[in-house]
Amino acid sequence: MTAPSPSAAAALLSVLQFDRDGLIPAIAQQHDTGEVLMLAWMNREAVQATLATGRVTYFSRSRQALWRKGETSGQTQRLVELRIDCDGDALLLLVDQTGAACHTGTRSCFFRAVHGGALDRIAEPIVDPKSLYGAEA
Amino acid sequence: MTAPSPSAAAALLSVLQFDRDGLIPAIAQQHDTGEVLMLAWMNREAVQATLATGRVTYFSRSRQALWRKGETSGQTQRLVELRIDCDGDALLLLVDQTGAACHTGTRSCFFRAVHGGALDRIAEPIVDPKSLYGAEA
Repeated sequence: MTAPSPSAAAALLSVLQFDRDGLIPAIAQQHDTGEVLMLAWMNREAVQATLATGRVTYFSRSRQALWRKGETSGQTQRLVELRIDCDGDALLLLVDQTGAACHTGTRSCFFRAVHGGALDRIAEPIVDPKSLYGAEA
Repeated sequence: MTAPSPSAAAALLSVLQFDRDGLIPAIAQQHDTGEVLMLAWMNREAVQATLATGRVTYFSRSRQALWRKGETSGQTQRLVELRIDCDGDALLLLVDQTGAACHTGTRSCFFRAVHGGALDRIAEPIVDPKSLYGAEA
């Protein structure tokens, strides 16, 4: 992805509807397989950093800080394309995920599914979570 | 999808983390193509109704009411599988979407993408939005 100019980035940001905490939900989807990897949050600065660097950066609600995905764990997300929904209040990030998106070591955070009324694990870790870090991805 | 028993549904609901407005974000993805269709919100009652009926039901934040997807527009979503993320604070709904998920008539709400610093339309309506209704899908 080519980084937009600062004025183009400002124009894009003006389309977005941030919530009362200044955040917008962002879905990360693996660009070639279509797998939905995770849902996280961005503030204005995280959107700017993601567009400027091509490295996906979220806002961690638990740490109340920018969270450059993979900075600690090495499980980075490269931005392939950023999409905006009809109301401008949700983002879809087509990404190229290195390794595991989830802090539990699974490729996707959505590794549990309702089957016949029970919650089943549908995917196993591909990376030992202990090798990643102690906390949030 | 087989509807879970009331006790199984209650157990599932106990895993979910609703926000301070009692809502949880839900991503709808077409089950066979992998296309991400939309992001909307559910409250506890919407999750229950979706599981019980297999018809996806959201909570409309603008109308502050349950929103049985497609009730007015006919563009329904049948639930194929419900997935829950690692923290229990986001849902992924694998659905079978009839027609257009978006109130603008496009298949997906994510019909705008950042290309070279500008916002491009990447999909056209497949249904005339005037034929759907006046307001929200």
